[in-house]
Formats: sequence, structure tokens, C-alpha cells
Amino acid sequence: MANIETFDNPHPQRDYVIHHVAPEFTSLCPRTGQPDFGTIEIEYIADKLCVELKSLKLYLQSYRNEGVFYEDVVNRILDDLVCASRPRRMKVTGKFTPRGGMNSIITAEYTHQG
Amino acid sequence: MANIETFDNPHPQRDYVIHHVAPEFTSLCPRTGQPDFGTIEIEYIADKLCVELKSLKLYLQSYRNEGVFYEDVVNRILDDLVCASRPRRMKVTGKFTPRGGMNSIITAEYTHQG
Amino acid sequence: MANIETFDNPHPQRDYVIHHVAPEFTSLCPRTGQPDFGTIEIEYIADKLCVELKSLKLYLQSYRNEGVFYEDVVNRILDDLVCASRPRRMKVTGKFTPRGGMNSIITAEYTHQG
Amino acid sequence: MANIETFDNPHPQRDYVIHHVAPEFTSLCPRTGQPDFGTIEIEYIADKLCVELKSLKLYLQSYRNEGVFYEDVVNRILDDLVCASRPRRMKVTGKFTPRGGMNSIITAEYTHQG
Amino acid sequence: MANIETFDNPHPQRDYVIHHVAPEFTSLCPRTGQPDFGTIEIEYIADKLCVELKSLKLYLQSYRNEGVFYEDVVNRILDDLVCASRPRRMKVTGKFTPRGGMNSIITAEYTHQG
Amino acid sequence: MANIETFDNPHPQRDYVIHHVAPEFTSLCPRTGQPDFGTIEIEYIADKLCVELKSLKLYLQSYRNEGVFYEDVVNRILDDLVCASRPRRMKVTGKFTPRGGMNSIITAEYTHQG
Amino acid sequence: MANIETFDNPHPQRDYVIHHVAPEFTSLCPRTGQPDFGTIEIEYIADKLCVELKSLKLYLQSYRNEGVFYEDVVNRILDDLVCASRPRRMKVTGKFTPRGGMNSIITAEYTHQG
Amino acid sequence: MANIETFDNPHPQRDYVIHHVAPEFTSLCPRTGQPDFGTIEIEYIADKLCVELKSLKLYLQSYRNEGVFYEDVVNRILDDLVCASRPRRMKVTGKFTPRGGMNSIITAEYTHQG
Amino acid sequence: MANIETFDNPHPQRDYVIHHVAPEFTSLCPRTGQPDFGTIEIEYIADKLCVELKSLKLYLQSYRNEGVFYEDVVNRILDDLVCASRPRRMKVTGKFTPRGGMNSIITAEYTHQG
Amino acid sequence: MANIETFDNPHPQRDYVIHHVAPEFTSLCPRTGQPDFGTIEIEYIADKLCVELKSLKLYLQSYRNEGVFYEDVVNRILDDLVCASRPRRMKVTGKFTPRGGMNSIITAEYTHQG
Repeated sequence: MANIETFDNPHPQRDYVIHHVAPEFTSLCPRTGQPDFGTIEIEYIADKLCVELKSLKLYLQSYRNEGVFYEDVVNRILDDLVCASRPRRMKVTGKFTPRGGMNSIITAEYTHQG
Repeated sequence: MANIETFDNPHPQRDYVIHHVAPEFTSLCPRTGQPDFGTIEIEYIADKLCVELKSLKLYLQSYRNEGVFYEDVVNRILDDLVCASRPRRMKVTGKFTPRGGMNSIITAEYTHQG
Repeated sequence: MANIETFDNPHPQRDYVIHHVAPEFTSLCPRTGQPDFGTIEIEYIADKLCVELKSLKLYLQSYRNEGVFYEDVVNRILDDLVCASRPRRMKVTGKFTPRGGMNSIITAEYTHQG
Repeated sequence: MANIETFDNPHPQRDYVIHHVAPEFTSLCPRTGQPDFGTIEIEYIADKLCVELKSLKLYLQSYRNEGVFYEDVVNRILDDLVCASRPRRMKVTGKFTPRGGMNSIITAEYTHQG
Repeated sequence: MANIETFDNPHPQRDYVIHHVAPEFTSLCPRTGQPDFGTIEIEYIADKLCVELKSLKLYLQSYRNEGVFYEDVVNRILDDLVCASRPRRMKVTGKFTPRGGMNSIITAEYTHQG
Repeated sequence: MANIETFDNPHPQRDYVIHHVAPEFTSLCPRTGQPDFGTIEIEYIADKLCVELKSLKLYLQSYRNEGVFYEDVVNRILDDLVCASRPRRMKVTGKFTPRGGMNSIITAEYTHQG
Repeated sequence: MANIETFDNPHPQRDYVIHHVAPEFTSLCPRTGQPDFGTIEIEYIADKLCVELKSLKLYLQSYRNEGVFYEDVVNRILDDLVCASRPRRMKVTGKFTPRGGMNSIITAEYTHQG
Repeated sequence: MANIETFDNPHPQRDYVIHHVAPEFTSLCPRTGQPDFGTIEIEYIADKLCVELKSLKLYLQSYRNEGVFYEDVVNRILDDLVCASRPRRMKVTGKFTPRGGMNSIITAEYTHQG
Repeated sequence: MANIETFDNPHPQRDYVIHHVAPEFTSLCPRTGQPDFGTIEIEYIADKLCVELKSLKLYLQSYRNEGVFYEDVVNRILDDLVCASRPRRMKVTGKFTPRGGMNSIITAEYTHQG
Repeated sequence: MANIETFDNPHPQRDYVIHHVAPEFTSLCPRTGQPDFGTIEIEYIADKLCVELKSLKLYLQSYRNEGVFYEDVVNRILDDLVCASRPRRMKVTGKFTPRGGMNSIITAEYTHQG
């Protein structure tokens, strides 16, 4: 996986909401090797660090040739972003295009236990 | 009925929401033998197991030549998915296209009694 | 009136919601004999019996040449369906097309007093 | 004013909702004599009597050549309908088209004090 | 009928389009005496004269208590406006609200034969 | 069939368009006896006679308990209206609601051969 | 400023809602002298007096050549209407069109302290 | 394949348009055996025979368990309908739901060579 | 940065809401120097001072050639406006157009601690 | 590149239109190595051969890790499909998502010179 870079939250004394929408996510199905497509939404309240956008883009792109389940990828993105940026709260949603006539939406959340 | 396969929930320590939408469901009317059509929606929180998508597709396809009432099929899908994957919570909705000028929506829910 | 048939609720141990929408309802005005048109919506939780759809269609069609007030027909449908299927809860709504430049919506509900 | 006729509520033992929408209301401005236009909505729960629709249409039409303020007409309709049908609850709303570049909405309610 | 007044076309050397929309037209049905409602649209290219708006409003209001067929009223409005303002071209459309479950649109056009 | 009445075209010297839309048409299927529903649109240019609206409503209502194919009813309405009113041109369209999961649109036209 | 006239509330014993929308408000910018445009909404419950519509129109028109800040005009309208009509409650909203690429919405409320 | 029944065109002297839309078409992929779904549209001008709707429904249903390419099925439906009903003109369109992230539309036409 | 000017709140005794929407914001990416675009929304309740609109426009324009993170700019606008106008409450939202296939929304709020 | 497979056109005697829409196309930018995303539309009239859908999907997927200009990829797809299936006519359109705030549409066509 590409490295998620951060920069110092320029306003850590304040709880404010950061929301990124990435409609060009693609990975591979771990069973068939076929490409999957979807939109990843990330909504969080930073603590000391903000997620840097270009590294986030490269991080999401690094799934391009990975075989990974929908349920796994949404939780892994959440875990990696929590690990890199230590937010106060974060929610990740994956909305995937139809496969076999079915489409899927996965949603996972994290809250810092102070 | 086709077998519903599962895989280990990659993130069982977290309550997160999995939502599948299958707009190509078809079965047969138990009275007339005529085909019925509808959309099946499945929304759940996994415990130890996730429902595998390809087997879910094949499971739903196995109703293609079955005669079954709307009220029955929605509850049977819920029962079979609960039995196979033992979720923390699950809701199944069937939205069926008009027959005799009438359309029907059936909704059933399950909550694990810990 | 045509007979409302029922079949055994295949999953009586569960409270689940059944919703039928019938947009092709027609009856006659009891004053003028002119046809009235509207949509009948039926939403219920079955107890031991489910309403069979074909007989429901025929039951609703049997108002085709009946003279009946809007207020009456919605309550009679509710009474007849409650009588035939003994549901836990049921709501009937009639949305009628304009007559004399006015359109009407009538809503009636039943809850079983256990 | 035309007479508001009623008929016996066919189901007085039940609280159910009757909603009439009359988009073709017209009266005259009491200052200028110019025609005003609007939609009158009537929503009520009947007690022993229902408002008969044809007489309601004729009653609303009888304002056609009357000079009357918006605020007055909505309250008068409410008073006359309450007087004629003795409902358990009733709400009347008048939504009037622009005059002098301004449009107006007036809403009045009645609840029977048992 | 009220008089249709005109004023001199300030730019007669140019063919330009004038379009008036009057959504508050009402007259009476010549058979039943019941009120009819509709929108009158007038679109024209003036020659030497323009139709004055306040007199147009009063002219359309003068049908308020007239019994007149839809087909007649649209053509009469066209004839009266052509007679008063001698346009190069004019189209009048009447879009009437439903009566007996049917709604009607009538369109008539005039072109000056130079 | 109910009689189609006419009245003298008040403006026979002009070709203008009359368009009626009747969304509450219902007849019976000649095979099953089940009710069919649809919208009938009639668009014509009158010659000496116009179709009277109340008789048109009653004429369309007279199909209520008739068994008739879609293809037949659209052409019969056209034939009967042409016979009664001798228009310069007429088009009849029937847009029918789904039966057996299929919906149908039938369009027939007449032009007077002067 | 033009005078705001009132008339006796015809139904003072009842709390009912009066809502006027005036989309044609215009005043001048106090800095640049350029015209500003917006919609003024007034919603109130009358006590003994209702605001007369024609005088309200003229009152709003009297800002046409006044230089006044958005924040000021909304509050002044509220103050003047409260002073003239002594309502039980009143809310005034000004929604202004873009200036310098920015648009503004100002909202102020009054409640009578009995 | 089920038999396509016809009935005598009740108005063969007139060229009129018959348009059927069947959104519940399903067949099997000839490569994978997986179900395909789509909408079939049929638009034609009958000569001596009309296609009977119930047999058309059953004919389209008879593809339910057939393995057939999109390109083939649209042309076969056209051929079978032309063979059974000998129309003056006919067009068949198949709009299929996505498979492998791609959706397909196939259109074929026939004109009788008199 | 350009100076944010203020003027005396003309109605400081009242809590009312001021909402400005600036859809033409542009700054530079601090990493790449490329231009960023977005909409800035400012919603506040003034205390003794209101933000003057022309100076606000010039202030927002002064970011045109500044390299600044999304997270920073939203908080800096909030800080600068709070510092200049000392509001009772204020919220700033930045909605930025896609970069690298991702779009971002940042929201920050301030409440005066009396 | 993956091989484009074909199958015998089942109805070569007829000119009919085949239209495939592939909204999940992705390749790499030849300058930056960053992923590009777009929709590829293919519309053709087959001669002796039809393009097989699964191989078309795999062919389009084989651009996933290729660096290629928009202008090049659309023409190469057209060339490869023409070469493999020898159609009578074919058009390929690429509609690409925004890069640097700009989005692009490329269209190329082929006609067989008989």
C-alpha cells in the first residue's frame, strides 16, 4: 500500500468536519481477478493530523491491482487512515457498481476512545 | 436451493453495515406458474461471517423456477441468510412488479438475541 | 362482493410488513352513478393468515359497478380485510382523482386489541 | 352562501382522516373588486357527519362573486364546515396566487372540546 | 365584453415576439352553468399596435360569468385581439382543467395575409 | 354505445386544433373478462361540427363493461368520432397500463379526403 | 416610508398562520448606490390586527430608492410591521440575489412577551 | 418456443401503429448459463393479423430457460413475429441490463416488400 | 490578506441569522501550485458588528494567488471573520471541486463563550 | 492486448444496430502514470461476425495498466474491433472524467468501402 501522508492540523483546537469523496476507486475481485469499481467517501474530525490529499489519492490508487473483498477494503481504508492520522472520529463508505446484477454499499465508523 | 457460502468477517470487532441490492430477482407464482419479478434488498451487520456475493447471486437465482408466495420468499431468504451467516442484525425487503394491476412490498427483520 | 381468500402466514412467529398498492380502483358515485377512480394502498402485519393477491384483485374489482362514497369504501375495505385475515395491524388509504375540481384522500387504520 | 350538505358518517366508531383539495377556488378582493384565485385544502376527522362533496363544491363556488379578505375566507370556511358537520378535528388552508407581486398562505384549525 | 385597448408599437420596423400567459382564466359551462378554469396563452408579432396589458386582463375577466364552449372562447379571444390590434401573426392556446375526468387544450392561429 | 353529440363549430372558417385527454378509460379484456385501464387522447381539426365534451365522456364510459381488444377500441373510437363529427383530421391514441408485465400504445389517424 | 395599514382580524379568538411572499423587493446599496434585489417573506400570527396587502406592497415599494444594508432592511421591516400590527408572533426573511459573486439570506423573528 | 397467436386485424384498411413494451424479459447467456435481463420493445403496423398479447407474453416467457445471444434473440423475435403476423412494418429493440459492467441495445427492423 | 471591514449591527438587541454564499472562491494548491476552486458559505449571528460585503468579497479574492490547504483556508476564514466581527456564532463551509478525481467539503464552527 | 473473440452473425442478411456501453473503462495517463477513467460506447452494424461480449470486456480491461492518450485509445479500440469483426459500419466514443478541471469526449468512425 502507498503511504498515507499527513500534515499538522492547522486548527487542532477546533472540532471541524473534513469530507472527501473519491468516485474513481477500483480494485480486483479476490475470487475472479476481475476489476471492481466504486465510490469511497471519507468523513472525519481531525485531531493533531490531517490526511494529505495527494497521498490519499495515491493510497486509494494502490488498491488498483489488489484482490480484496468489499467488506475488507472499506474496513482496511478506515484502519489505515485511523492509524496514520489518529482522528477524533472517522466514517468510511464504499458504494460499489453492480456485479452479477447486484450492487453493494458498505459503511464503517471509528470513534476515538479518549 | 443453492448453497450460501460465507467467508470470515475480516473485521468482526466492529459493527459496520453491509447493504446488497439485487434488482434482477425472479420466481414463479405458486398459483399460476407465471413468472414474478422484483428487487431484493439485504442489509445486515455481520458477526463472525460475511455472505459471499457470488454464492448469494446463485442462491437468489435458484428461485428462478420455484413457485413461491411473495410473503414466503422474503422470509425464507431472511431465514436462510441468518442460518448461513449468523449476523448480529439483518433486514430483507422484496419490492415486486405489478401483477393484476397491483404491486407489493414485503419487509422482514431479524435481530440476534445475545 | 367477491370473496377474500387467505393462505396460512408462512412465518407467523415474525412481525413483518406487507404493503400492496392498487392504482386501478374504480367504483360508482352513489349520487350520480358516474365512475370514480383512485389508488387503494393496503399495509398490514399478518397474524395467522395472509391475504391472497388474486382474490384481493377480484375483491377490489367487485366495486366496479357499486355505488359507494369514498369515506365508506375505504372503511369497508378495511373491515372486510380485517374480517377475512385477522391481522395484527392494518392501514387502508384511498387516493381519488378529481371530481368537480376537487380530489380526496381517505385513510383508516385498525390495530388488534390483544 | 350555498348550503353544505352532509351524510351520516358510515363508520363513526373509527377516527379516520378525510382530506379534500380544491385548487379552483376564486373570490373577489373586497377593496378592488378584482378576482382572487387559490387552493383550499380541508382535512378533518368526522364525528357523526361527513361533508358531501357536491355540496362542498357548490359552497366553495358561492364565493365566486363575493368580496372577502384571504384571512376572513379561510376562517369562514372553517366555521361553516364545523357548524354543518360537527367534526372531531378540522384544518383549513388557503394558498393564494400572487397579487401585487406577493402570494399568501393562511391556515386555521379547529378541535372539538369534548 | 370589456374593451381591448392598444398602444402604438414602439418598434414596428422589427418582427419581435410578445408572449402573455394568463393562468387565472375562468368562465362558465354553457350546458351546466358550472365554472370552468384554464390558462390562456397569447403569442403574437405586432404590426402597428400592441395590446395594452391592463385592458387585456379586464377583457379576460369579462368571461368570468359568461357561458361559453372551450372551442368558442379560444377563437373569440383570437378574433377580438386580431380585430383590436391587427397583428402580423397571433396564436391563442387555452389549456383547461379536467372536467368529467378529461382535460382539453385548444389552439388557434392567425396570420395576416398581406 | 352512448351517442356522441356535436355542436356547430363556432369558427369553421379556421383550421384550429382541439385536443382532449381522458386518463380514466376502462374496458374489459375480450379473452379473460378482466378490466383494462388506459388513457385515450383525441386530437382533431373540426370541420362543421365539434364533439360535445359531456357526451364524449359518456361515450368513453360506455366501454366500461365491453369486452374489446386495444387495437379495436382505438380504431372504433376514431371511426365513431369521425362518423359523428366529420372532422378535417383526427388522431386517437390509447396508452394502456401493463398486463402480463407488458404495456401497449396504439395510435390511429384519419384525414378527410376532400 | 409608506404607511402600513391594517384591518381588524376577523377571527382574533383563533391562532392561525398568515404567510406572505414578496419576490419583487428592491432597494439600493448604501455604499455604491447600485440596486439590490431579493425576496421578502413575512409569516405571522395576528392578534387584533391584520396587515392590509396593498399597503404592505406600497410599504415594501418605498425602499426602492433607499440606501440600506441587507441586515438593516430585514430588521426594519420586522420592526415596522410589529409596530403597526402588534402580532402575537412574526418572522421576516430576506433572500438577496448575488452581488460581487455572493448571495445573502437574513432572518429575524419577534415573539410578543405577554 | 410458445406459439404466437394472432387475431384478425379489426381495421386492416388503415395504417395504424401498435407498440408493446415488455420490461420483464429474461433468458440465459449461451456461454455461462447465467440469466440475462432486459426490455423488449415491439412496434409495428399490422396487415391482416394482429399479435395476441397473452400469447406474446407466453412466447417471450419461453426464452426464460433458453441460452441465446442478445444479437440473436432480437432478430429471432422479429423473425417469429413477422412469420406469425405478416405485418406491413415491424421494429424490435432489446435493451439489456449490465453484464461485466457493460450494457447493450440491439435494434432490428423489417419492411414488407410489396 | 485584504482587510475585513465591518459596520455597526443596526439591530444588536436581536439574534438574527446572516448567511452569505460565495461560489467563486479560488486559491492555489500549496504542493503543486495548481488553482483550486470552490464555494465558501458563511452563516452567523452578529453581535455588535456586521461583516461588510464588499470588503468580504475583496478578502476572499485575496486568496487567489495564495498556496493554502483546504482545511487551513476554511479555518483561517473563520478565524479572520471572528476576529474582525466578534459574532455570537459563526459557521464556515468550503465545498471544493474535484482534484485527482476527489472532491472535498470542509466545515468549521465558532460559538462565543460568554 | 487481450484477444477480441467473435461469433457468427446469426442474421447477416439484415442490417441491424448493435450498441454496447462500457462505463467502467480505465487506463493510465502516458505522461504522469496516473489512472484515467471514462465510458466507452461502441455502435456497429455487423457483417459476417459479431463481437463476443466477454472477450470485449477483457479486451477493454487490458488497457487497465497501459499508458495511452485519450485520442489514441479511442482510435485503437476502433481499429482492433474493425480488424477482428470486419463490420459494415462502426463508431467508437470515449467520454472521459475531468482531469485538471477539464473533461474530454473523443469520437471515431469507420465505414466499410464495399
